[in-house]
Amino acid sequence: MADYVKVALDAMGGDHAPAEVVKGAIEAVNEEKKVKIFLFGDESRIRQELSGYTYDSAQVEVVHASEVIGMSEPPVNAIRKKKDSSIVKGMAYVKQGECDAFVSAGSTGAVLVGGQVLVGRIKGVERPPLAPLIPTADGVTLLLDCGANVDARPSQLVQFAKMGSVYMENVVGVKDPKVGILNIGAEEEKGNALVKETFPLLKNCPDINFVGSVEARDVPLGAVDVVVCEAFTGNVLLKTYEGVGATLISAVKEGMLSSVRSKIGALMVKPALKKTLKKFDIEQYGGAPLLGLKGLVVKTHGSSKAIEIKNSIMQCVTFKEQHINEKIQEKITLTDPS
Amino acid sequence: MADYVKVALDAMGGDHAPAEVVKGAIEAVNEEKKVKIFLFGDESRIRQELSGYTYDSAQVEVVHASEVIGMSEPPVNAIRKKKDSSIVKGMAYVKQGECDAFVSAGSTGAVLVGGQVLVGRIKGVERPPLAPLIPTADGVTLLLDCGANVDARPSQLVQFAKMGSVYMENVVGVKDPKVGILNIGAEEEKGNALVKETFPLLKNCPDINFVGSVEARDVPLGAVDVVVCEAFTGNVLLKTYEGVGATLISAVKEGMLSSVRSKIGALMVKPALKKTLKKFDIEQYGGAPLLGLKGLVVKTHGSSKAIEIKNSIMQCVTFKEQHINEKIQEKITLTDPS
Repeated sequence: MADYVKVALDAMGGDHAPAEVVKGAIEAVNEEKKVKIFLFGDESRIRQELSGYTYDSAQVEVVHASEVIGMSEPPVNAIRKKKDSSIVKGMAYVKQGECDAFVSAGSTGAVLVGGQVLVGRIKGVERPPLAPLIPTADGVTLLLDCGANVDARPSQLVQFAKMGSVYMENVVGVKDPKVGILNIGAEEEKGNALVKETFPLLKNCPDINFVGSVEARDVPLGAVDVVVCEAFTGNVLLKTYEGVGATLISAVKEGMLSSVRSKIGALMVKPALKKTLKKFDIEQYGGAPLLGLKGLVVKTHGSSKAIEIKNSIMQCVTFKEQHINEKIQEKITLTDPS
Repeated sequence: MADYVKVALDAMGGDHAPAEVVKGAIEAVNEEKKVKIFLFGDESRIRQELSGYTYDSAQVEVVHASEVIGMSEPPVNAIRKKKDSSIVKGMAYVKQGECDAFVSAGSTGAVLVGGQVLVGRIKGVERPPLAPLIPTADGVTLLLDCGANVDARPSQLVQFAKMGSVYMENVVGVKDPKVGILNIGAEEEKGNALVKETFPLLKNCPDINFVGSVEARDVPLGAVDVVVCEAFTGNVLLKTYEGVGATLISAVKEGMLSSVRSKIGALMVKPALKKTLKKFDIEQYGGAPLLGLKGLVVKTHGSSKAIEIKNSIMQCVTFKEQHINEKIQEKITLTDPS
């Protein structure tokens, strides 16, 4: 029992909860014997979903939570008031050490606020960045911060660089990951006040592989492994990424179905194209971790299907087994430039 | 003669100068009898290019400029020192009223600095934003500012909204264009300090159609006609747009050529797909205007081919004929909220 990686899962969060969330949990436990899932939410609805599956019951536990935090509720208030919500109860399990990680497809704001307030930061971490992996031409890149903590300070960006490096090296397996600061030109003198102040700090940071500025246009090419930026800009980059990708892919599909001739052609290119587009499908990579917390919190897309839930759970296993938080703690404490 | 729209063209700017620039100029004069092009640059090289074309010689004039400002030269210094460069001389023609507009595919920095320093701002305009049109699912959207003037103030963003509205209504022909402020959520309380301060100003601005916040993911869908933001963020959005588009399109092409079966299919979908992708091809829309100057300055991509140069010239014609600057002047003066 003690060897399980224990994941608290918000069974009520996201557009397809609880059905797809429970399905993802079952797919995870059936693939990975080391994981145990705690499903938080309406017990009877969860049990009803569970009744359709075969799985090792030692790997799944249901914890009743009578409340749900809605997608558009003001997060600070919701976290404070809804003590019996799946998010607040699930995070409490992480805080108390009964679970190692928490995964939710629910309200981003509530997950971010709850992560800081309920789970708490690792000592020395100023801000926990939300750090999604984004697909690139030759793999994935970690983008941080994409969270709600806008208007960051330079010292915080330096911590993002360190935490991102630990994650890419140990969870994704990229040796000596290249770190770039998001900028509007390649030269050191380019940028806004924040970038100009942060650049020399990153340059002088001994334990990361800082390669300088990275322009947004080079991010999809995989120019660097870790992109460091302030949360407002990071959010704009991430959402543009998703928006342009989705719009282009649907335009390509629509274009291919516009004539009889192209419809036949579309059938022939479909298998090959599917493989290509799958690489750019953000669901393949699971949710985004909120780094620097005492325990792991993973936020998956509101639109998450079972596959993304499963991948998010798998990420928690690697995170725990690779001792990411211990490594973050060490990196933050040892070389804090401030 | 007096009826010509006179465009100063930097014949030495961009990756394909002077050949493609001259070609674009000739295509423009052969299509539009009302335009006269002044080609600035190395006279003998320009004349050599011109010798291959048939055109009305009254519509083309060559003005020798012995210097070229390089893409990576520090712009302020280059504008100050290289008095005989194609950019400085071309802009001087606009300043002196000998030309109505200036078009360049050369150094963005030099064009932005030159626009402000040499051409000068319309009275009351705090900052001239660089305002590219970006393709969306159902048309185009104007994104401003994407220039080099980062860390803008709220009053400047309000001016961007006004100038952008004038441009979309009169150059692109969108009636009562919808203006959105780029934000990381739809709610009014979301955003960084700049957005929170600007939001109420835009809301209270009587002569624009402000619809609230727009998330980056909804920009490609054409959610609004004018997106207002600070230049650093705007540049990140624009470059992500271009980068993801280019990466995805090349991945789609590569995917389609990965098997014999898909290669045959690719031939069949090609005509239909070409039409679709053309819509997302940024070159179709000509360069980005620098709004709020006494005269028009248009910056086209460094990689511009003849088609983009021609479209940029055509944009100058509409700009002049629609009296955009007079309309901007009026809007800025009448309702300045500061």
